[in-house]
Amino acid sequence: MNRTLAIGLFSGTDDRLNAAAVLIAGAAALGRPVHVFLQYWALAAFRGAIIDEDHGLAPEAGAAGADAVHRLARLGQASWAETLRQAKEIGQVEIQACSLSMDLFELEADDLDPLVDGVEGVTAFWLAASDADVLFI
Amino acid sequence: MNRTLAIGLFSGTDDRLNAAAVLIAGAAALGRPVHVFLQYWALAAFRGAIIDEDHGLAPEAGAAGADAVHRLARLGQASWAETLRQAKEIGQVEIQACSLSMDLFELEADDLDPLVDGVEGVTAFWLAASDADVLFI
Amino acid sequence: MNRTLAIGLFSGTDDRLNAAAVLIAGAAALGRPVHVFLQYWALAAFRGAIIDEDHGLAPEAGAAGADAVHRLARLGQASWAETLRQAKEIGQVEIQACSLSMDLFELEADDLDPLVDGVEGVTAFWLAASDADVLFI
Repeated sequence: MNRTLAIGLFSGTDDRLNAAAVLIAGAAALGRPVHVFLQYWALAAFRGAIIDEDHGLAPEAGAAGADAVHRLARLGQASWAETLRQAKEIGQVEIQACSLSMDLFELEADDLDPLVDGVEGVTAFWLAASDADVLFI
Repeated sequence: MNRTLAIGLFSGTDDRLNAAAVLIAGAAALGRPVHVFLQYWALAAFRGAIIDEDHGLAPEAGAAGADAVHRLARLGQASWAETLRQAKEIGQVEIQACSLSMDLFELEADDLDPLVDGVEGVTAFWLAASDADVLFI
Repeated sequence: MNRTLAIGLFSGTDDRLNAAAVLIAGAAALGRPVHVFLQYWALAAFRGAIIDEDHGLAPEAGAAGADAVHRLARLGQASWAETLRQAKEIGQVEIQACSLSMDLFELEADDLDPLVDGVEGVTAFWLAASDADVLFI
Protein backbone atom coordinates (compact mmCIF):
# COMPACT_ATOMS: atom_id res chain seq x y z
CA MET A 1 0.00 0.00 0.00
CA ASN A 2 2.93 2.39 0.09
CA ARG A 3 3.47 2.22 -3.65
CA THR A 4 4.06 5.69 -5.06
CA LEU A 5 1.28 7.42 -6.94
CA ALA A 6 2.72 9.43 -9.86
CA ILE A 7 0.45 11.88 -11.65
CA GLY A 8 0.97 13.75 -14.88
CA LEU A 9 -1.37 16.63 -14.05
CA PHE A 10 -2.30 18.41 -17.26
CA SER A 11 -5.78 19.90 -16.78
CA GLY A 12 -6.30 23.34 -15.31
CA THR A 13 -10.03 23.53 -14.64
CA ASP A 14 -11.35 23.46 -11.08
CA ASP A 15 -13.37 20.28 -11.57
CA ARG A 16 -10.44 18.16 -12.77
CA LEU A 17 -8.02 19.76 -10.31
CA ASN A 18 -10.44 19.03 -7.49
CA ALA A 19 -10.88 15.41 -8.56
CA ALA A 20 -7.07 15.14 -8.67
CA ALA A 21 -6.68 16.78 -5.25
CA VAL A 22 -9.19 14.36 -3.68
CA LEU A 23 -7.40 11.36 -5.16
CA ILE A 24 -4.01 12.74 -4.03
CA ALA A 25 -5.20 13.55 -0.50
CA GLY A 26 -6.80 10.13 -0.18
CA ALA A 27 -3.63 8.34 -1.29
CA ALA A 28 -1.44 10.50 0.96
CA ALA A 29 -3.70 9.81 3.96
CA LEU A 30 -3.11 6.09 3.38
CA GLY A 31 0.64 6.65 3.58
CA ARG A 32 1.39 6.53 -0.13
CA PRO A 33 4.05 8.89 -1.50
CA VAL A 34 2.61 11.06 -4.28
CA HIS A 35 4.65 12.66 -7.05
CA VAL A 36 2.88 15.23 -9.23
CA PHE A 37 4.26 16.54 -12.55
CA LEU A 38 2.53 19.77 -13.64
CA GLN A 39 2.09 20.17 -17.41
CA TYR A 40 0.35 22.78 -19.51
CA TRP A 41 -2.88 24.21 -18.06
CA ALA A 42 -2.36 22.61 -14.66
CA LEU A 43 0.97 24.39 -14.34
CA ALA A 44 -0.66 27.67 -15.36
CA ALA A 45 -3.23 27.19 -12.59
CA PHE A 46 -0.46 26.81 -9.96
CA ARG A 47 0.88 30.32 -10.56
CA GLY A 48 0.97 32.00 -7.16
CA ALA A 49 -0.90 35.08 -8.35
CA ILE A 50 -3.99 33.16 -9.45
CA ILE A 51 -4.02 29.77 -7.71
CA ASP A 52 -6.93 30.72 -5.43
CA GLU A 53 -9.00 32.29 -8.22
CA ASP A 54 -11.75 30.68 -10.29
CA HIS A 55 -10.24 28.42 -12.97
CA GLY A 56 -13.46 27.51 -14.73
CA LEU A 57 -14.87 24.08 -15.43
CA ALA A 58 -14.81 21.60 -18.29
CA PRO A 59 -17.36 22.56 -20.98
CA GLU A 60 -19.39 19.45 -20.18
CA ALA A 61 -20.27 20.97 -16.79
CA GLY A 62 -22.91 23.16 -18.37
CA ALA A 63 -24.94 25.64 -16.35
CA ALA A 64 -26.40 23.01 -14.00
CA GLY A 65 -22.97 21.56 -13.25
CA ALA A 66 -21.51 24.99 -12.59
CA ASP A 67 -24.37 25.77 -10.21
CA ALA A 68 -23.71 22.56 -8.30
CA VAL A 69 -19.98 23.30 -8.00
CA HIS A 70 -20.57 26.86 -6.85
CA ARG A 71 -23.22 25.78 -4.33
CA LEU A 72 -20.75 23.37 -2.71
CA ALA A 73 -18.07 26.08 -2.64
CA ARG A 74 -20.46 28.44 -0.86
CA LEU A 75 -21.15 25.68 1.68
CA GLY A 76 -17.47 25.76 2.56
CA GLN A 77 -15.96 22.93 0.49
CA ALA A 78 -12.18 23.27 0.50
CA SER A 79 -10.67 24.38 -2.81
CA TRP A 80 -8.33 21.98 -4.58
CA ALA A 81 -5.37 24.17 -3.55
CA GLU A 82 -6.45 23.99 0.08
CA THR A 83 -6.95 20.22 -0.17
CA LEU A 84 -3.43 19.89 -1.56
CA ARG A 85 -2.01 22.06 1.23
CA GLN A 86 -3.65 19.76 3.76
CA ALA A 87 -2.40 16.68 1.88
CA LYS A 88 1.18 17.98 2.06
CA GLU A 89 0.80 18.43 5.83
CA ILE A 90 -0.39 14.91 6.51
CA GLY A 91 1.55 13.00 3.87
CA GLN A 92 4.42 12.86 1.43
CA VAL A 93 3.26 14.87 -1.59
CA GLU A 94 5.84 16.28 -3.98
CA ILE A 95 4.73 18.66 -6.73
CA GLN A 96 7.12 19.39 -9.60
CA ALA A 97 6.65 21.72 -12.56
CA CYS A 98 7.44 20.34 -16.03
CA SER A 99 10.41 22.29 -17.38
CA LEU A 100 8.98 22.36 -20.91
CA SER A 101 5.73 23.85 -19.65
CA MET A 102 7.72 26.44 -17.65
CA ASP A 103 9.22 27.50 -21.00
CA LEU A 104 5.80 27.46 -22.62
CA PHE A 105 4.46 30.08 -20.23
CA GLU A 106 7.84 31.84 -19.73
CA LEU A 107 7.62 31.22 -15.99
CA GLU A 108 10.28 31.43 -13.31
CA ALA A 109 10.18 29.35 -10.13
CA ASP A 110 9.19 32.49 -8.21
CA ASP A 111 5.99 32.76 -10.25
CA LEU A 112 4.67 29.51 -8.77
CA ASP A 113 2.70 28.94 -5.59
CA PRO A 114 4.69 27.51 -2.65
CA LEU A 115 2.78 24.25 -3.17
CA VAL A 116 5.21 23.61 -6.04
CA ASP A 117 8.47 22.07 -4.79
CA GLY A 118 10.59 22.54 -7.90
CA VAL A 119 11.03 22.15 -11.64
CA GLU A 120 11.98 18.89 -13.35
CA GLY A 121 12.21 17.37 -16.81
CA VAL A 122 10.31 14.37 -18.08
CA THR A 123 13.23 12.04 -17.41
CA ALA A 124 13.18 12.97 -13.72
CA PHE A 125 9.44 12.35 -13.68
CA TRP A 126 9.80 8.86 -15.11
CA LEU A 127 12.61 8.06 -12.68
CA ALA A 128 10.37 9.15 -9.79
CA ALA A 129 7.59 7.02 -11.30
CA SER A 130 9.76 3.96 -11.87
CA ASP A 131 7.81 1.86 -9.36
CA ALA A 132 4.51 3.65 -9.15
CA ASP A 133 0.90 3.74 -10.24
CA VAL A 134 0.80 6.39 -12.94
CA LEU A 135 -2.22 8.57 -13.76
CA PHE A 136 -2.76 11.30 -16.34
CA ILE A 137 -5.37 13.84 -15.31
CA MET B 1 -3.54 -11.15 -16.17
CA ASN B 2 -6.08 -11.07 -13.33
CA ARG B 3 -4.70 -7.85 -11.91
CA THR B 4 -7.53 -5.47 -11.03
CA LEU B 5 -8.22 -2.51 -13.29
CA ALA B 6 -9.27 0.51 -11.19
CA ILE B 7 -10.72 3.52 -12.97
CA GLY B 8 -11.45 7.00 -11.68
CA LEU B 9 -14.17 7.79 -14.20
CA PHE B 10 -14.68 11.55 -14.31
CA SER B 11 -15.87 12.45 -17.82
CA GLY B 12 -19.54 12.43 -18.73
CA THR B 13 -19.56 12.75 -22.52
CA ASP B 14 -20.57 9.82 -24.69
CA ASP B 15 -17.21 9.60 -26.47
CA ARG B 16 -15.12 9.26 -23.32
CA LEU B 17 -17.69 7.05 -21.62
CA ASN B 18 -17.73 4.78 -24.66
CA ALA B 19 -13.92 4.57 -24.75
CA ALA B 20 -14.02 3.70 -21.04
CA ALA B 21 -16.75 1.09 -21.55
CA VAL B 22 -14.78 -0.61 -24.35
CA LEU B 23 -11.63 -0.75 -22.18
CA ILE B 24 -13.66 -2.06 -19.21
CA ALA B 25 -15.49 -4.70 -21.26
CA GLY B 26 -12.22 -5.82 -22.84
CA ALA B 27 -10.50 -6.19 -19.47
CA ALA B 28 -13.51 -7.97 -17.95
CA ALA B 29 -13.65 -10.41 -20.87
CA LEU B 30 -10.03 -11.34 -20.11
CA GLY B 31 -11.01 -12.18 -16.53
CA ARG B 32 -9.72 -9.03 -14.88
CA PRO B 33 -11.73 -7.56 -12.00
CA VAL B 34 -12.66 -3.95 -12.72
CA HIS B 35 -13.44 -1.34 -10.08
CA VAL B 36 -14.92 1.95 -11.28
CA PHE B 37 -15.17 5.10 -9.12
CA LEU B 38 -17.64 7.62 -10.58
CA GLN B 39 -16.69 11.27 -10.05
CA TYR B 40 -18.27 14.51 -11.24
CA TRP B 41 -19.77 14.44 -14.74
CA ALA B 42 -19.46 10.68 -15.08
CA LEU B 43 -21.58 10.24 -11.96
CA ALA B 44 -24.14 12.70 -13.33
CA ALA B 45 -24.36 10.61 -16.52
CA PHE B 46 -25.18 7.46 -14.49
CA ARG B 47 -28.42 8.92 -13.08
CA GLY B 48 -31.16 6.42 -13.86
CA ALA B 49 -33.43 9.00 -15.43
CA ILE B 50 -30.94 10.05 -18.10
CA ILE B 51 -28.35 7.26 -18.51
CA ASP B 52 -29.72 6.22 -21.92
CA GLU B 53 -30.03 9.78 -23.25
CA ASP B 54 -27.55 11.73 -25.38
CA HIS B 55 -24.69 13.01 -23.20
CA GLY B 56 -22.91 15.04 -25.84
CA LEU B 57 -19.31 14.78 -27.01
CA ALA B 58 -16.03 16.48 -26.19
CA PRO B 59 -15.76 19.85 -27.97
CA GLU B 60 -12.91 18.51 -30.12
CA ALA B 61 -15.39 16.17 -31.84
CA GLY B 62 -16.65 18.99 -34.04
CA ALA B 63 -19.45 18.48 -36.53
CA ALA B 64 -17.64 15.77 -38.51
CA GLY B 65 -16.87 13.79 -35.36
CA ALA B 66 -20.46 14.07 -34.15
CA ASP B 67 -21.69 12.85 -37.54
CA ALA B 68 -19.39 9.82 -37.33
CA VAL B 69 -20.57 8.96 -33.81
CA HIS B 70 -24.24 9.31 -34.72
CA ARG B 71 -23.81 7.25 -37.89
CA LEU B 72 -22.37 4.35 -35.87
CA ALA B 73 -25.19 4.63 -33.33
CA ARG B 74 -27.77 4.42 -36.13
CA LEU B 75 -25.97 1.30 -37.40
CA GLY B 76 -26.72 -0.32 -34.06
CA GLN B 77 -23.53 0.19 -32.04
CA ALA B 78 -24.24 -0.57 -28.40
CA SER B 79 -24.30 2.47 -26.14
CA TRP B 80 -21.68 2.69 -23.36
CA ALA B 81 -24.39 1.85 -20.81
CA GLU B 82 -25.35 -1.26 -22.76
CA THR B 83 -21.67 -2.26 -23.14
CA LEU B 84 -21.24 -1.92 -19.38
CA ARG B 85 -24.37 -4.02 -18.72
CA GLN B 86 -22.89 -6.75 -20.92
CA ALA B 87 -19.51 -6.41 -19.19
CA LYS B 88 -21.14 -6.94 -15.79
CA GLU B 89 -22.81 -10.12 -17.11
CA ILE B 90 -19.61 -11.69 -18.38
CA GLY B 91 -17.11 -10.42 -15.82
CA GLN B 92 -16.47 -8.92 -12.42
CA VAL B 93 -17.21 -5.20 -12.84
CA GLU B 94 -17.99 -3.14 -9.74
CA ILE B 95 -19.17 0.47 -10.16
CA GLN B 96 -19.14 2.76 -7.13
CA ALA B 97 -20.27 6.39 -6.88
CA CYS B 98 -17.89 8.84 -5.22
CA SER B 99 -19.57 10.09 -2.03
CA LEU B 100 -18.28 13.63 -2.52
CA SER B 101 -19.77 13.77 -6.01
CA MET B 102 -23.07 12.41 -4.63
CA ASP B 103 -23.09 15.47 -2.33
CA LEU B 104 -22.15 17.71 -5.24
CA PHE B 105 -25.27 16.78 -7.16
CA GLU B 106 -27.44 16.16 -4.05
CA LEU B 107 -28.09 12.61 -5.21
CA GLU B 108 -29.46 9.64 -3.29
CA ALA B 109 -28.58 6.03 -4.17
CA ASP B 110 -32.07 5.63 -5.65
CA ASP B 111 -31.32 8.31 -8.23
CA LEU B 112 -28.63 6.13 -9.85
CA ASP B 113 -28.99 3.51 -12.55
CA PRO B 114 -28.84 -0.12 -11.34
CA LEU B 115 -25.40 -0.35 -13.02
CA VAL B 116 -24.08 1.45 -9.93
CA ASP B 117 -23.40 -0.96 -7.07
CA GLY B 118 -23.01 1.52 -4.25
CA VAL B 119 -21.43 4.68 -2.87
CA GLU B 120 -17.89 4.86 -1.49
CA GLY B 121 -15.33 7.42 -0.37
CA VAL B 122 -11.89 7.96 -1.86
CA THR B 123 -10.24 5.84 0.85
CA ALA B 124 -12.35 2.84 -0.14
CA PHE B 125 -11.41 3.45 -3.76
CA TRP B 126 -7.69 3.43 -3.02
CA LEU B 127 -8.04 0.29 -0.89
CA ALA B 128 -9.81 -1.43 -3.81
CA ALA B 129 -7.01 -0.14 -6.08
CA SER B 130 -4.18 -1.23 -3.79
CA ASP B 131 -2.87 -3.79 -6.28
CA ALA B 132 -4.29 -2.58 -9.57
CA ASP B 133 -3.64 -0.74 -12.77
CA VAL B 134 -5.19 2.69 -12.24
CA LEU B 135 -6.65 4.88 -14.98
CA PHE B 136 -8.28 8.30 -14.88
CA ILE B 137 -10.75 8.88 -17.69
CA MET C 1 12.75 0.41 -15.35
CA ASN C 2 11.97 -1.52 -18.54
CA ARG C 3 8.35 -2.02 -17.62
CA THR C 4 6.11 -1.31 -20.60
CA LEU C 5 4.17 1.94 -20.75
CA ALA C 6 0.74 1.34 -22.33
CA ILE C 7 -1.34 4.35 -23.34
CA GLY C 8 -4.94 4.58 -24.39
CA LEU C 9 -4.57 7.76 -26.43
CA PHE C 10 -7.99 9.32 -26.92
CA SER C 11 -7.52 13.09 -27.22
CA GLY C 12 -6.81 14.74 -30.54
CA THR C 13 -5.85 18.30 -29.61
CA ASP C 14 -2.27 19.46 -30.00
CA ASP C 15 -1.79 20.23 -26.30
CA ARG C 16 -2.76 16.76 -25.08
CA LEU C 17 -1.00 15.04 -27.96
CA ASN C 18 2.15 17.00 -27.19
CA ALA C 19 2.00 16.14 -23.49
CA ALA C 20 1.57 12.50 -24.51
CA ALA C 21 4.46 12.67 -26.98
CA VAL C 22 6.79 14.14 -24.35
CA LEU C 23 5.86 11.40 -21.84
CA ILE C 24 6.29 8.72 -24.53
CA ALA C 25 9.64 10.06 -25.74
CA GLY C 26 10.92 10.36 -22.18
CA ALA C 27 9.93 6.78 -21.36
CA ALA C 28 11.39 5.46 -24.62
CA ALA C 29 14.68 7.28 -23.99
CA LEU C 30 14.91 5.43 -20.66
CA GLY C 31 14.60 2.12 -22.49
CA ARG C 32 10.96 1.43 -21.70
CA PRO C 33 8.82 -0.21 -24.39
CA VAL C 34 5.78 1.93 -25.18
CA HIS C 35 2.51 0.64 -26.63
CA VAL C 36 -0.01 3.23 -27.80
CA PHE C 37 -3.66 2.45 -28.63
CA LEU C 38 -5.28 5.23 -30.69
CA GLN C 39 -8.96 5.82 -29.97
CA TYR C 40 -11.45 8.38 -31.22
CA TRP C 41 -10.04 11.90 -31.78
CA ALA C 42 -6.44 10.80 -31.36
CA LEU C 43 -6.86 8.31 -34.19
CA ALA C 44 -8.45 11.02 -36.35
CA ALA C 45 -5.38 13.20 -35.74
CA PHE C 46 -3.04 10.45 -36.99
CA ARG C 47 -4.56 10.43 -40.49
CA GLY C 48 -1.69 10.90 -42.89
CA ALA C 49 -3.34 13.76 -44.75
CA ILE C 50 -3.65 15.97 -41.69
CA ILE C 51 -1.18 14.77 -39.05
CA ASP C 52 1.07 17.80 -39.49
CA GLU C 53 -1.77 20.33 -39.52
CA ASP C 54 -3.11 22.38 -36.61
CA HIS C 55 -5.35 20.19 -34.41
CA GLY C 56 -6.53 22.91 -32.05
CA LEU C 57 -6.27 23.03 -28.28
CA ALA C 58 -8.47 22.13 -25.33
CA PRO C 59 -11.05 24.90 -24.66
CA GLU C 60 -9.35 25.71 -21.35
CA ALA C 61 -6.32 27.01 -23.28
CA GLY C 62 -8.08 30.27 -23.98
CA ALA C 63 -6.49 33.01 -26.05
CA ALA C 64 -3.46 33.42 -23.77
CA GLY C 65 -2.74 29.70 -23.80
CA ALA C 66 -3.06 29.53 -27.56
CA ASP C 67 -0.64 32.46 -27.91
CA ALA C 68 1.88 30.67 -25.71
CA VAL C 69 1.62 27.45 -27.71
CA HIS C 70 1.97 29.24 -31.04
CA ARG C 71 4.93 31.30 -29.80
CA LEU C 72 6.80 28.12 -28.87
CA ALA C 73 5.96 26.56 -32.24
CA ARG C 74 7.38 29.61 -34.03
CA LEU C 75 10.54 29.25 -31.91
CA GLY C 76 11.01 25.82 -33.46
CA GLN C 77 9.53 23.43 -30.88
CA ALA C 78 9.07 20.02 -32.46
CA SER C 79 5.46 19.05 -33.14
CA TRP C 80 4.07 16.02 -31.31
CA ALA C 81 4.26 14.03 -34.56
CA GLU C 82 7.92 14.92 -34.93
CA THR C 83 8.61 14.06 -31.29
CA LEU C 84 6.99 10.67 -31.83
CA ARG C 85 9.03 10.06 -34.99
CA GLN C 86 12.18 10.74 -32.97
CA ALA C 87 10.95 8.52 -30.13
CA LYS C 88 10.47 5.64 -32.56
CA GLU C 89 14.04 6.09 -33.79
CA ILE C 90 15.63 5.94 -30.36
CA GLY C 91 13.32 3.49 -28.62
CA GLN C 92 10.69 0.80 -28.86
CA VAL C 93 7.44 2.64 -29.54
CA GLU C 94 4.54 0.76 -31.09
CA ILE C 95 1.43 2.67 -32.18
CA GLN C 96 -1.76 0.72 -32.93
CA ALA C 97 -5.10 2.03 -34.14
CA CYS C 98 -8.22 0.85 -32.30
CA SER C 99 -10.28 -1.23 -34.74
CA LEU C 100 -13.57 0.17 -33.40
CA SER C 101 -12.36 3.73 -33.99
CA MET C 102 -11.23 2.76 -37.50
CA ASP C 103 -14.87 1.77 -38.14
CA LEU C 104 -16.09 4.98 -36.52
CA PHE C 105 -14.23 7.11 -39.06
CA GLU C 106 -14.50 4.58 -41.92
CA LEU C 107 -10.71 4.53 -42.21
CA GLU C 108 -8.43 2.07 -43.98
CA ALA C 109 -4.87 1.38 -42.85
CA ASP C 110 -3.64 3.39 -45.86
CA ASP C 111 -5.34 6.50 -44.50
CA LEU C 112 -3.03 6.58 -41.48
CA ASP C 113 0.38 8.17 -41.10
CA PRO C 114 3.35 5.76 -41.22
CA LEU C 115 3.79 6.42 -37.48
CA VAL C 116 0.94 3.95 -36.99
CA ASP C 117 2.16 0.35 -37.02
CA GLY C 118 -1.16 -1.42 -37.38
CA VAL C 119 -4.74 -1.93 -36.24
CA GLU C 120 -5.75 -3.95 -33.19
CA GLY C 121 -8.77 -4.64 -31.00
CA VAL C 122 -9.13 -3.91 -27.32
CA THR C 123 -8.22 -7.48 -26.37
CA ALA C 124 -4.86 -7.16 -28.11
CA PHE C 125 -4.30 -3.87 -26.30
CA TRP C 126 -4.92 -5.42 -22.89
CA LEU C 127 -2.67 -8.36 -23.72
CA ALA C 128 0.11 -5.92 -24.67
CA ALA C 129 -0.60 -4.05 -21.43
CA SER C 130 -0.64 -7.16 -19.25
CA ASP C 131 2.46 -6.11 -17.32
CA ALA C 132 2.58 -2.38 -17.88
CA ASP C 133 1.88 1.03 -16.46
CA VAL C 134 -1.36 2.11 -18.16
CA LEU C 135 -2.33 5.70 -18.91
CA PHE C 136 -5.41 7.19 -20.55
CA ILE C 137 -4.74 10.52 -22.23
